[in-house]
Amino acid sequence: MDTEENGHFIAESVLVDFCVSVLEKIGVPRGDAIIASKNLVEADMRGVYSHGVVRFPIYVKRILDGGTNPKATPFIERQTRTTAVFNGDNGLGHLVGVKAMQLAIDKAQEGDCAFVAVNNSNHFGTAAYYAEMAARQNMIGFSFTIGAINHMAPWGGAEAVLGNNPFAIAFPTREAFPVVLDMACSVAARGKIIVAAKEGKPIPDDWATGPDGLPTTDAVEALKGFVIPVGGPKGYALTMAVGMLSTMLSGAAFGHDVGELYEKTTTAQNGGHLFGVLPVASFDDLDTYLDRMQKGMADLRNAKKATGVDRIYMPGEREYLSLLAARERGIPIGPMLTKDLQALAEEYQVNFELIN
Amino acid sequence: MDTEENGHFIAESVLVDFCVSVLEKIGVPRGDAIIASKNLVEADMRGVYSHGVVRFPIYVKRILDGGTNPKATPFIERQTRTTAVFNGDNGLGHLVGVKAMQLAIDKAQEGDCAFVAVNNSNHFGTAAYYAEMAARQNMIGFSFTIGAINHMAPWGGAEAVLGNNPFAIAFPTREAFPVVLDMACSVAARGKIIVAAKEGKPIPDDWATGPDGLPTTDAVEALKGFVIPVGGPKGYALTMAVGMLSTMLSGAAFGHDVGELYEKTTTAQNGGHLFGVLPVASFDDLDTYLDRMQKGMADLRNAKKATGVDRIYMPGEREYLSLLAARERGIPIGPMLTKDLQALAEEYQVNFELIN
Repeated sequence: MDTEENGHFIAESVLVDFCVSVLEKIGVPRGDAIIASKNLVEADMRGVYSHGVVRFPIYVKRILDGGTNPKATPFIERQTRTTAVFNGDNGLGHLVGVKAMQLAIDKAQEGDCAFVAVNNSNHFGTAAYYAEMAARQNMIGFSFTIGAINHMAPWGGAEAVLGNNPFAIAFPTREAFPVVLDMACSVAARGKIIVAAKEGKPIPDDWATGPDGLPTTDAVEALKGFVIPVGGPKGYALTMAVGMLSTMLSGAAFGHDVGELYEKTTTAQNGGHLFGVLPVASFDDLDTYLDRMQKGMADLRNAKKATGVDRIYMPGEREYLSLLAARERGIPIGPMLTKDLQALAEEYQVNFELIN
Repeated sequence: MDTEENGHFIAESVLVDFCVSVLEKIGVPRGDAIIASKNLVEADMRGVYSHGVVRFPIYVKRILDGGTNPKATPFIERQTRTTAVFNGDNGLGHLVGVKAMQLAIDKAQEGDCAFVAVNNSNHFGTAAYYAEMAARQNMIGFSFTIGAINHMAPWGGAEAVLGNNPFAIAFPTREAFPVVLDMACSVAARGKIIVAAKEGKPIPDDWATGPDGLPTTDAVEALKGFVIPVGGPKGYALTMAVGMLSTMLSGAAFGHDVGELYEKTTTAQNGGHLFGVLPVASFDDLDTYLDRMQKGMADLRNAKKATGVDRIYMPGEREYLSLLAARERGIPIGPMLTKDLQALAEEYQVNFELIN
């Protein structure tokens, strides 16, 4: 990932406005463009560059090519008081996801748990963003999605019928950030294998298989093969479960039906997600729960450190610290990405002013 | 694990009756003993021997030592129409878990999703058992638990403040078994490290750390250290999340408060779980969902096989095939375990008749 090492910085507001302006010029209503752009840029703020504006060009291309609907009006297909199927109308995943999680939060206002299954959506960025929306309302938030590209074989297989299928679970805390698990199901991101292949370096033997489905340390062979899930057969089961949660209740695409984010840009992906919320106060007094969380976090943070380690972080803490740093000095943005976004800025005649 | 290789077989009904009879003799009411014993023996039927009757002696010991309450009357501490906190009254986890999941299923009868958080429970066996209860009612079932022993350090740590924290998610299908993910969060079970240490063999470098928190291939050092979570920091976050889901809403023990299943047998563990259900028919027509599942399963099963692989299994399928085989020929039971259970049978004067 090309990031701060040899790049520039850009202010959050400038980057959000840039995305909003480009999206508006290609037909996305301003209000929707703001929701999607804030979501997208927060990934960069949190240091999750792989899911930030590095994806913006493909989102734009998909709208231009007809694969994503800029004027989507997502709607409830079916609902009970605590469940819903939400149709994204093939809109930007970042917009659909926010609306669907908000629906789950709204359904929980009387103290119920609530789950919303989504179809007809698109790549939605980081799973954590939605789970954290719930945590800020003092609810435990769940966010599951099917990946936008198949890169993984079932355990024992040699054919890509599974995505990387990320998910997130966020817990309200008394701190400035929620504790949040956000993980994809492969040992290593495919991007790392691409880098190794370019540099002619071997990869660890648990990252990927070759096209024959057997583990390989040859990065070039690995790119013809499949990423390996965390924990082997455990990760296969986890990937499958996250994928099924994200699609089977709503009819979103699974298995062979999953599209290709970067290749098939003219057709809808029918992406799927599942969002859920558990309002803390329905289980116990909020303060009691928050006391428990502080004690639990202290047990983890104050554990004896491994040799050479100074500090134990809570999941989500590094990302929060990255966000604070980005507010202070701007968002780091590498030279290749800067060039790509500058080209878009020029094409659409919108501002893209760097800090340095 | 000592299993069928050089052992005996026992009929399901004999093994269940044996457990029921022993539990009755130490004060567990017959109805409760039946619920717990069926649950326990099903783990052996499914080939998950690590969570079957191999644990029966410690469950008995804990009751005798006062650490577990044989006459527990679990009760609802607090509830809304779709949530509850369920107090296990320090009863057998296998009993408490069944009652708590049944409460979640009951709460979902009008089509709501429902979640039940549990405190004051004990080691509950396999997470899959509860998730499958929901799947048999055409609900997606979730089952989370805090581990009964801390064996894992937080990422960067060198102190055991996390358990192995297993969880399960089960999906209804048209087949004879639900698809079910059931995983603990470490790369390898600690039992495998014990075996390697006994045999003087090295272990792979991603199984465990030594007491300094750094990875080791020395099995003896590893037993003084900590198991490594799947996917490194990903697995740390996952373990933490499963642990928090299982305890923070109910006030069950987390971190330093977690007891020791085998060591501290005179005091209550205050074990915690979380059970959840999503009724399929609240999201879409059941038949439509089942069609999707069959298609999704076919995509996985029919994927091209890796070199040397004949068949791709669905998660939960091997366990179901094991269960069918156990019904046919009995449950395999190794010589050491046979001896342990025969001793109990003699002590309590109950039947323990082997097939061969």
